[in-house]
Order: sequence, then structure tokens, then C-alpha cells
Amino acid sequence: MFKTLLILITPRSFPLAPPAGQTPYIHNLLYSEEYSSSSRAAGMNGNGPAKLVDPLEDPVPGLGTYEDFNTIDWVREKSKDRDRHREITKKSRQSTVALLHSVSDAFSGWLLMLLVGLMSGALAGGIDIAAHWLTDMKDGVCLIGFWFNHEHCCWTSNETTFQERDRCPQWQSWGELITGTSEGAFAYIMNYLMYIFWALLFSFLAVTLVRAFAPYACGSGIPEIKTILSGFIIRGYLGKWTLIIKTITLVLAVSSGLSLGKEGPLVHVACCCANILCHLFTKYRKNEAKRREVLSAAAAVGVSVAFGAPIGGVLFSLEEVSYYFPLKTLWRSFFAALVAAFTLRSINPFGNSRLVLFYVEFHAPWHLVELAPFVLLGIFGGLWGALFIKANIAWCRIRKSTRLGHYPVTEVLVVAALTALLAYPNSYTRMSGAELISELFNDCSLLDSSQLCGYKQVSLPDRPAGEGLYTALWQLALALIFKMMITVITFGMKVPSGLFIPSMAVGAIAGRLLGVGMEQLAYYNHDWLIFKGWCSPGADCITPGLYAMVGAAACLGGVTRMTVSLVVIMFELTGGLEYIVPLMAATMTSKWVADAFGREGIYEAHIRLNGYPFLEPKEEFEHSSLAVDVMRPRRSDPALAVLTQEGMTVGEVETLVESTHYSGFPVVVSQESQRLVGFVLRRDLLISIGQNRVCVYILICVSHFNHAPAQAPEAPPPLRLRGIMDLSPFTVTDHTPMDITVDIFRKLGLRQCLVTHNGRLLGIITKKDILKHMAQIANRDPDSILFN
Amino acid sequence: MFKTLLILITPRSFPLAPPAGQTPYIHNLLYSEEYSSSSRAAGMNGNGPAKLVDPLEDPVPGLGTYEDFNTIDWVREKSKDRDRHREITKKSRQSTVALLHSVSDAFSGWLLMLLVGLMSGALAGGIDIAAHWLTDMKDGVCLIGFWFNHEHCCWTSNETTFQERDRCPQWQSWGELITGTSEGAFAYIMNYLMYIFWALLFSFLAVTLVRAFAPYACGSGIPEIKTILSGFIIRGYLGKWTLIIKTITLVLAVSSGLSLGKEGPLVHVACCCANILCHLFTKYRKNEAKRREVLSAAAAVGVSVAFGAPIGGVLFSLEEVSYYFPLKTLWRSFFAALVAAFTLRSINPFGNSRLVLFYVEFHAPWHLVELAPFVLLGIFGGLWGALFIKANIAWCRIRKSTRLGHYPVTEVLVVAALTALLAYPNSYTRMSGAELISELFNDCSLLDSSQLCGYKQVSLPDRPAGEGLYTALWQLALALIFKMMITVITFGMKVPSGLFIPSMAVGAIAGRLLGVGMEQLAYYNHDWLIFKGWCSPGADCITPGLYAMVGAAACLGGVTRMTVSLVVIMFELTGGLEYIVPLMAATMTSKWVADAFGREGIYEAHIRLNGYPFLEPKEEFEHSSLAVDVMRPRRSDPALAVLTQEGMTVGEVETLVESTHYSGFPVVVSQESQRLVGFVLRRDLLISIGQNRVCVYILICVSHFNHAPAQAPEAPPPLRLRGIMDLSPFTVTDHTPMDITVDIFRKLGLRQCLVTHNGRLLGIITKKDILKHMAQIANRDPDSILFN
Repeated sequence: MFKTLLILITPRSFPLAPPAGQTPYIHNLLYSEEYSSSSRAAGMNGNGPAKLVDPLEDPVPGLGTYEDFNTIDWVREKSKDRDRHREITKKSRQSTVALLHSVSDAFSGWLLMLLVGLMSGALAGGIDIAAHWLTDMKDGVCLIGFWFNHEHCCWTSNETTFQERDRCPQWQSWGELITGTSEGAFAYIMNYLMYIFWALLFSFLAVTLVRAFAPYACGSGIPEIKTILSGFIIRGYLGKWTLIIKTITLVLAVSSGLSLGKEGPLVHVACCCANILCHLFTKYRKNEAKRREVLSAAAAVGVSVAFGAPIGGVLFSLEEVSYYFPLKTLWRSFFAALVAAFTLRSINPFGNSRLVLFYVEFHAPWHLVELAPFVLLGIFGGLWGALFIKANIAWCRIRKSTRLGHYPVTEVLVVAALTALLAYPNSYTRMSGAELISELFNDCSLLDSSQLCGYKQVSLPDRPAGEGLYTALWQLALALIFKMMITVITFGMKVPSGLFIPSMAVGAIAGRLLGVGMEQLAYYNHDWLIFKGWCSPGADCITPGLYAMVGAAACLGGVTRMTVSLVVIMFELTGGLEYIVPLMAATMTSKWVADAFGREGIYEAHIRLNGYPFLEPKEEFEHSSLAVDVMRPRRSDPALAVLTQEGMTVGEVETLVESTHYSGFPVVVSQESQRLVGFVLRRDLLISIGQNRVCVYILICVSHFNHAPAQAPEAPPPLRLRGIMDLSPFTVTDHTPMDITVDIFRKLGLRQCLVTHNGRLLGIITKKDILKHMAQIANRDPDSILFN
Repeated sequence: MFKTLLILITPRSFPLAPPAGQTPYIHNLLYSEEYSSSSRAAGMNGNGPAKLVDPLEDPVPGLGTYEDFNTIDWVREKSKDRDRHREITKKSRQSTVALLHSVSDAFSGWLLMLLVGLMSGALAGGIDIAAHWLTDMKDGVCLIGFWFNHEHCCWTSNETTFQERDRCPQWQSWGELITGTSEGAFAYIMNYLMYIFWALLFSFLAVTLVRAFAPYACGSGIPEIKTILSGFIIRGYLGKWTLIIKTITLVLAVSSGLSLGKEGPLVHVACCCANILCHLFTKYRKNEAKRREVLSAAAAVGVSVAFGAPIGGVLFSLEEVSYYFPLKTLWRSFFAALVAAFTLRSINPFGNSRLVLFYVEFHAPWHLVELAPFVLLGIFGGLWGALFIKANIAWCRIRKSTRLGHYPVTEVLVVAALTALLAYPNSYTRMSGAELISELFNDCSLLDSSQLCGYKQVSLPDRPAGEGLYTALWQLALALIFKMMITVITFGMKVPSGLFIPSMAVGAIAGRLLGVGMEQLAYYNHDWLIFKGWCSPGADCITPGLYAMVGAAACLGGVTRMTVSLVVIMFELTGGLEYIVPLMAATMTSKWVADAFGREGIYEAHIRLNGYPFLEPKEEFEHSSLAVDVMRPRRSDPALAVLTQEGMTVGEVETLVESTHYSGFPVVVSQESQRLVGFVLRRDLLISIGQNRVCVYILICVSHFNHAPAQAPEAPPPLRLRGIMDLSPFTVTDHTPMDITVDIFRKLGLRQCLVTHNGRLLGIITKKDILKHMAQIANRDPDSILFN
């Protein structure tokens, strides 16, 4: 009676998981009557066919999941979530418990956002405090307690006035501690050596920890997060080890004085928090697409805590990193970003109750004539951005292809030593990047004792430069060159390293130099035509701090190609709509100039360098090729490997799967007609075949069962694929222009698409095929695309 | 030799446009040898076959365009634009002129944005000034010149102090002018009557102008703009007449004192500007998809000038109105919104150099306990929003279905008279909505002489309410009831009418009432547990103005269901991140409460009321139906009308087209196999057949020509459709779940999609079918969807 064994493998029908390691092949077992009857018994026992389609239950382990370094199928994931939602809604009408479950399910997203905001805000606060302390430790130590940083130490001592708040007897530099005096060459040399020693120690610890515990913790993380958000899977990239190690090593790396920032890595840290917290909620744990919505919001949280700019953070996530950003995510990101910002503020790491990293307040308005220098800064930013990307990618290629890549620890130590050695003598490079930017952004008020305010008459708004300022300008010029060089070799090393602060520092220095130049030009030439009418003697007409800010935006824009989000972040720093226009002019110019040299930002360049399968949503596909030019098999290739709807035995399928490496197989009516029925993923097929508890179930689709071909009793059983087959594969015709095909891939988040001609299956296009085709068009190596 | 006439109709192959009105049928002409030879001659003459595929040239007039009240095909439009771009890029390599053309083409988008920003900013400034003047005219007249408004009149007179800036002898109320004294009942009655007279005059002018010249100028315009942005065509909706009439009547309607605002209509005005300016640039004139990008930016411009909130405007466009919003548009919208805001500021219509409509500055922080009243305001806002939508839609249905709809002028006059009659005695309803909101938002400073600040001790921050305040509270309560009632019947009349201001006014009144209540509660009960610790005697702990702002946001959120954009607009009004949390709590609550009563905002409700084919991008499709359940033909219907690839004569095609009303026909290999080849639009088919200059051209696709079936010389000629046929129609299989199908329609912007089973054509799904299906699921009348 059951001689013609019809094996229907449905995704949710296996009551027990297979014992690990045991994967006997189906066709070896099929002929034993005992096996088939025992499996039938298993099918009836407990949760049998009745529960076939409960999407809230655990499916067969592995079915519907993805392998590492593979792309998810957005359509399938979203469909799964909708199934789940439908099931919950249906159940909620039946009982109060189910209704409560449905309500808690609806609010779990908000709760998760709250938790992500709280955790990221707290971590960011901790990182800020620790980095501040360790950075100061390079200089000296607090005698009342080594755990106080410089500022805190002198606050505690309570003996200083506000103006001399940085100097107090309790805080001793290393040289002072060792030599007993803070003056003299010996003390200076001791300070210098201790500075280098700490820099080496911190960077050594950072790189060793990264290498030992979490190799994914290095770099800024934004290129990978972009790729992950586009649907790629990198297991462990957002795991707990990465989080712990990245948090610790980020503090060490920032404190070591290397030319890197903590802003990019904070995005990675926030995403790790979100990913870990996702495990608390079934809805997000089990669905890759839903989890990516949370990660998009986490990226906004990261920027929100990095700059204290929640709206800018949301726009950053929208513009720069996210791939799929529904409106619901917009709203939730905003919520999470705000929670994080307020958590950070209540921790108050900067001790000034300010939310923002660089608080600026300008008073003088800007004049239309000043747009010329602002555009100039934009051009500088664009040029620097393009140059930086080219140089950094070239350096990373050298690292990858030569023996340099084998000695990451040595590399980090050498760069750290070099940085410390060159940075110490110049006060502008000795201070941390954030401090430098903050100083450059600020205007000289009467209280300011910085060298940058070394004007001859401090009390007037319109004043000639003095000795101090000239010295500062020289130092700044040297700092500019140094920062430009060292950042190129720093970014990409095996320590956590962000790019925002170094890029902004370069721009801020250039901007400040230009600003002071303009100011002095105006002071000495009030009668020039361009200054007439708005910059009369005694008027406060040029604000060098504003130039620094515009320059910083321009350089960051050139490197990352951010636009709106960058301007909004800067707007949130100043709080004045007035300065948006200069910022916009500079950012726009910078983007256009940089785009003229290459359309990729630094993150896209790194994605390409690593061969990730990332389909850039911003760039249009310009070429006029058709789907038929891109699809596999090519003309010279063997025919497409297909399954046929009926009459294929398990053995035949196995042979096909084993002899090919494709990640999926189209199912056709028959080899002759090639009319498409569906699509089966290799992974699902393998898992289904590999299950050692093969159960004979009632067919889901009875119609197909009915006209099953009569089979000889001794013939091998045909394999039925209904349960794991996707009956609605995406198809395009062979004449579809590739620009439309690429659009479909992007918008729907496809992994593959089948190509038909007049209803017959012709071939298949995968995301990798498209990326290879695009690489070929751009005269790049198509084999640089590594993953699918 | 040419007996077997193969007529290939290509979209770009007709050298001359057909004379209007003359559309002889092809098959009547085909047998005359003279005709075919003359047409051949025409084909050779001038721009013949050589220019077949130049996308920069004018195609056959009408081919590739759309009929009124139809949906565009986003994929085709975007593809057309890419073709155009490719062509320009290719040409730009050949000559310097072409290169310049290419550069100017690339920058035309920015130039257009600049123009849109300038024009909208200027118009908004003009509207503000005119509305201000006409509103004051209802009260009185300036003796030095009737063209001065009240404030300007007294500025000019220069005799007043700052505190009495509103009182000067030059400004006389109508009663004063007529009776000679500003006191007494007679003067009051004269003022009252004149107020009603002007209100009636303005509203009569407004409604008559709208009816006579531009019926599309009525209403807020946002529902229609949402529909247009989703790809619908309403010719004339954004035309020059609509612009002119809307601008004039908006001023009149606002000045007439009706309960309506100018913010929504400003979005319509900005979109009209954008649409008209699009005609200056070929790129945007000829491409419906590109034009919609500009319109999305224009919507941002509208909100930017309405509230002085450029970032909020961009987010409004993104969240509320736009359908297709690529990142490039984000950046350009931002630019246009800024240009518009600065243009408006340089016009300075409010005379205070402020960009924003209601400038607020709060000093006291808020306390966590206050979140409870804020959430309460959110609940009020949500309830009011849901109630308003239901009441307004019910009223609009009555207007549509009864005789009321036949007398729009009378309706407007009656409502205007009623509004004026009831509004005049209460000072809070007499003043314009914007003034009212501004007063409610503001805190009482020492200078403030408003009744709302009638506290017993003005100089203290913590003070008991006095007589004045109690009177004000009563008046406000009455104003609240009045506003709530009158707005329901006002919105939807045949005058330009926005909803933002009336909704915000309702919320602001409720908020202020609650705020004052809380303030007094705290004053008399400083020892209560909830006030302990943060609200001690003498402390400035509760800001009623903040409550008004939160209430306004809650009510606007309840009516429109805006979230992020609303919070950001409010943030831009205050400029302090502190107040985002209260705003967010209220908006979130309001949205949740309102959503519990119905998921549609007022704009979506009006879209549905008008039967526009709008596929809501925010809502998920929850039902579990399959494509086969939605597609046409249904089981009982006759078979799908198809064209066959070969062997169909012009006559057969004509019969098919005439006997059906479908807007497109699938093309299959043959009636037997039903294997899909492509899709032809009815309009293109009609135009092609209707061309009286039928030309015999070389076939584009030679392969098809080669195996043309041999035909008897006397048989009617077969029709070849290559040129107008879409060879890459979208298909889904019959098993595709409708949630995925709806997603595809939304994301790709499809008009129709073909349904196949195992490679055979089964049916077709159009946007209208989907909307009808959704209406059916929601137990609504599927025939309420009017357009396709």
C-alpha cells in the first residue's frame, strides 16, 4: 500500500531535530518497510500533521535560515513576519491571554528601542569617561587618586580659580613626579617618554585584545554594517564578544593618541547592543529582516550618542547606512536616538550638561561675500576626501597583498610610536582630536587663554594677530600636514578606528587657518571693495571658528559623501539655522568635487575592497545591457541545472546537488517544456534530504497528489518538493533592461531572479552576477566580488 | 513586392505629427498601392529610419503619455529617463557643445530647485502680507493709507511706545470711523456688522473665483498631491490657473475669518510653482517620474515656508506626502526648502526677522511628573483627531450625496456668516488662528498685557490666577467648543482651506487650559507629593505655554497622523532639544489613540472619499489571499483578451480594442500555448492604429521578421507590435501571496502585473483590482475606487 513512497518534505513537519552528525541518505533507507512505518508512527505521535502550518512554532532547525556570508531573501523574511503577525492577530480574537500576547508583541518593538537607547547611551557615557581618564594618564597622574582624570582631580582639590582650572598641585605630570620639578629639559623628556610609553602600551593592548578575542572588533565597522543592513550575514560581527572587546579596545585606541575617532565605532557598538537585545524578543530573534530594522535604528543611536545629534543620527542612518528604512523605523529610530541622547546627558561625561560633543555658539552673522572662502573650503574638502580615499585604499591593498598584513601588531606599534613621537612636540597634535576640534570651533572670548587667541588687543572684536597667534598658525599648519599623512595609514589597522574625528580635524585646521587669514585680511584692508559695507573697522565681521566648522563639514563630506545628515548634525551642534547655508555650500561643493574623482565614499570603497556583495542604492545603473547578457548560463556554459516537478528521485536530486555548487535550483514542469514552477534553495534541499527522520505526510497540495504518475513498485521514489519550494519565484524576461532588473533587486531585496523567454525558463541572475557585471563595466576585476 | 504589408509601428519613427481630428483607419487604406508607396516615400524623406532610436527627439505625439485620471508606469518613466541620460552621456564624449549640454542637464535639477525655492518663498511672503492686511481690514482702516495694515500703520505714525504699539490715532476701527467714537454700543455694533460684511465679501469672492476659474483650487490640496505623487495624473491640478486663483483665494479665505489655515494650501501652491517651472526643463517636462521628484521637493518647500521649518518640511514630505523619495531628492528638497525659507525671511512678512511662524522661547525645564498631563493631552489629541475625521468625512458624504453639494456658494456664505457672527464677541475666536496660537504658546512676561496673563502678582514666576485669567479661561473654553464644531463643517468647502492651524488651535487651547490648571494646582498645593522636590513655592515650575504647544502637536498628530516631521517642526519652532520628549510623548500617544479608532489620517480619508487609486505605503497588507484570488478574469468571466504575437490583422486588433475597455492587452505566442511575450497599452495601440501616416519601416527586430509566416497576398496584413510592445512585462505566479504582490506594486510603482501559472498566462492584476480587493476585505464598497 505504501510501496510508492511519496516523500513530501514540508518545512514545519518534523517533530524532532535530527541528531547532530548523523545524516544517512534517504534512498538508502527507503526500501526498508520498518523504516517507513516507524517514521509514519513518529509522524502521528505528538505534534503531527495537525500542526503543519503554525508559523509560531519552531520549524525544522535550519530550514529557512541562512549560512554565514550569504545574503538573505528580504521578500521571504518579510512574508514570514507577516504570516506570524497574521497568526497572532487571528489567535488574539480567541482568548485574553492571546490578546495580551498580541499587545505585548506590538509593543515589543518600542521596548526594544528603549533598551537599545539606554544601553547604548550608557556604554557611550562609559567610553567617554574611560577615554578621558586614560588620555590624561598619558600626561600625568592625580595624587589624590589615580582614578581621577585631570579636570576631575583639580575640581576635587577645590583650590583653583575657574581660569586656572587645569592647574593644581594634586595633578602631577610624569616628569614632575619623577624629576620633582615641572620645569627643565629633563622633565620634558621624561614626559615625552612616558607619553610614548603609554601610547605604545595602550595600542599594544588594543591590538592584542582584538586579535585574541574578537577579530571583527577592528576598524570603524560602518562598511560591514552597511553590508549587513543590505541583507548580508556575517555571524559574530554583532555578537557579545565583539561588543565587549570593541568597547574596551576603543577606549584604549582613542587614548593611545592614534589619529582616530570613536564616532564610527560607536555606531558599531550600538548595533551590537541592538543585535544582542534582539535575542530577548522572538519577533526579532527569528527574523533577519525585522532585526535589520532594529539595526538601522541602532545606527541612528550610534551617531546620536557620538555627536549628541538625534535628528542628525536618524538622517545619517537613512542617508548613509540603511538599505530598507520603512517609516515605522524612522519613528522608532528617532525615539531610540532621543533616549540614548538623554541617557548620555544624564551620565554627563563632559561635565558640562551639554548633549553635544562640540558646543558652539556664534554671534556674528555671515556675509554673502564669505561664500567664496566657504566654497574654497568645500573644494579643499572634496580634494582631500578623494585623495584620502585613493591613498587609504592603495595602502590597504598593499597591506592585503604584501607581507605587511602578517604583522598587524607590529604595524600598530610602529604607527603608534610614530604618531606619539611626532605628535608630542606640537600641542595641537598632542591633544585629542575632539579637544582640538572643540578648540578650533570656538571663538576667542575674553576668558580664552589659548594660543589661538593671541591677538594684540584681546578686548576688541576686530583685532590684529599677535605673536601667540602666529606661533599657533605655524603649529596648526604642521599639524595639518601630520594629520593628513598619519590618518591615511591609521584607518584600516587592526584596532577600532573611526574616521569622523580625524577628517573633521583636518578640515577644522584648514578652515581655521583660512578664517584667521580672512580676518587679518579684513583687518588690514577694511577699505577693499569686498569688505566694504559689512566689515568696517571695529565690527566683528569674520568668525574664524565658523570657518573651522565649515571646513570640518567639507572634509567629512568629502570623505564620507554624506550630505543632509552632515548638515543637520552640524546644525544641531550650533542650533542656528543661519549657519546652514555656509555648511550647505561647502558640503555640496565638497561632494561634487570629490565625486568628480570617483563616486565612492570611503565606506563604499572599503566594502568593495572586502568584496562584499553590496548593491549601492544611490548609484544608477547606467549601462544599456539586458537581462540576457547578465544571466547564467552563458552561451558556452552547460545548460541550467534544474529540478523537474515530478518524476525525480531522491537519488537524482542528490546527484544534482552534489555535482553542482549553486545555492538554489529552479523547478520546471519537465526538461522538455522548461516551463517554470518554482525555486528551491540548496540549503533547504540538503537539510530536507539530510533529515534522518523522513516522514510520510499528507500532501499539502492535493491536486498534485492526485495526478501523480503511477510507478512501478521497485522504482526509486520520486521526490516531492512542495513544502520547501518557493512557488512564487521572481522572474524577468530576457529582454528586461538591466537598469530595471537592478532596480527590482534593490527595491525588493532579492537574492536571485529567474529569466524567462516567452514563458520558458532561460537562466538565472543572482546578486553576485549583477555585481560582477557592474564590476566588468567599470573595468574592474569581476572576481573581486567574493560572496553571494 | 510589397503586397504582404508588414506594418511595424515604432514609437519614434513618425517624422510628422498627424493632422488633428483626422484618424482614418489603417485597414481602409492598406490595399491602395498609392498609399503604401506614398507612405514609403514619407518614410525616406527627411528624418527617416536612421533616427529611429534617438530618445532626445520628440516621439510620436501622444505615444508614451498618459490620459487624464490615469496612473503612470513608474518603471517605464524611469527607464525612459535613464535612456535619455545614457544618450546625453554618450553624446557628451563627442563634442564640446554636447558636453556643455550634458553639464547643464546635470545642473538643471539644482537650478530648478533654486527657482522653486525663490518663487514659493516670494509667493508665501506675498500671501502673508496680503492676508495680514485684509484681516486687519475687517477691523478698521489706516487713515494715512488704506494699504497699511494695523501694525504697519502705527509704526508709520511713530507716535506710540512699544507697549502701546497697537493703538494709534491713525488706525480707526470701522465703528470709530462711522460713529466718530470708539466707545459705546453703537460703535461696537457697527464694528460687528462691518466684520460680518467683510467676512461675507471675502468668502464670496473666494468661492466665486474658485468656481469660475479653477475648481481645483479648493480644499487643502494635500490629498490630491499625495495621489499625484503616487503616480496619478490630474491634468490642471497643478496648472497656472490653479496657482493664480489659489494664491488669491487663499488670501481671501484666510482673511474672511473662516476656521482654516494657509499651511496646507501653501504646499499646493509650492507644488504648482514646481510644476510650472518644470516646463522650462525638457528633462522634467517630459518625464512624469522626474517631475514627481521635483513635486516631492516642492511639498517640503511648502511646509518650510508655512512654518519656517526647512528640516521639518523635508521630513514632512518624506513621511507624509511622498511616494518615491530617492536620496537625491532628499538633498535637493533640503536645498529648495532652505532657499525658500531664506527668501521668505528676506521678505520679512512678520516684521520680526524671524523665520518661524510662532517663535517660542521657554526657560523653565519640565519635570518627569509632567509627562502625565502631556500624555493626557496626547489622548485628547487622538480622540479629537479620530472624532474630527469621522465627523468631517460624514459631513462631506452628506455634501456629496444630498442637494447641499449643489449650492457651494450658499454653503460658504452661510458658514462664513455663522463663523463671523459667533466669532466676533469672543476675542480669542475673533483673532486669526495663527495669532491665537502664537498667544497661547507664549509665556507671560512682564510686558505681556494679554488677558491670559491676568495673574494677581505679575512679577513672580509662581502666582495665583486673577480676574483677567478667569475670564480668559472661560472665553478659551467657549472658543474650544466653537473651533471644534466649525472646523468640521469648514474643511472640505469649495475654498482653499488648510487644517494645520485649526487643529493646532484646538490643541493649543486645550493645552493652555490644562497648563493653567496644573499651574494653579501646583500653586495652591505645593505640599502635594507629586509637586514635592521640584515645584516649591516661588519656583517657576510649570509653563502653560509649553502645554499649549504639546496640545497643538497632539491634535495635529491626531488629525494627520504625522509623527517625526511634526516633532521636528515643533523642535525647529523652539530650538531646544529639551522639549522634544514631551512633544514625542504626546504625539505618540495621540497617534496610538487615534489609530485605535481608525488607521486613516484625514488626508487618506479624503483620498478614499474621492475614490483616487492610492496604494497606502504605510499600511501592511494583512490578508492571506493569493494573486489568483485578485486577478481578472474571475472564474465566471470570459477569457482574458489577448493579442497574439503573429498572425493578427489590423482589423482583428481593432475589433478587440473596440469591443473591450481594458487599458492594455497582454501579447502571447499563440492562443493555444498562452505563453507570454509582452504587453501593449491600449492608448499606444490606438494612437498607432489611428496614425494616418502609416509607414512601412525596416523592422527593428530582424529575427522576428525572418520567420514571418508566409501569407496569401489577399489576406489582411498582420499587425506587428514590436515598437510599442513592452517586452518585459512584470509577472507574478498565481501562487504569489498578495502581501508580496502589493509590496511589488508599491515599491516598483506598477500599473498592472500579469499572472502566470507554470509559464502560461492566466490573468492580470491592476492597481485598481488590488484597491478593490482591499476595500472588499475591509467591508467597504469596492466600487468606491473610481480610477485606474
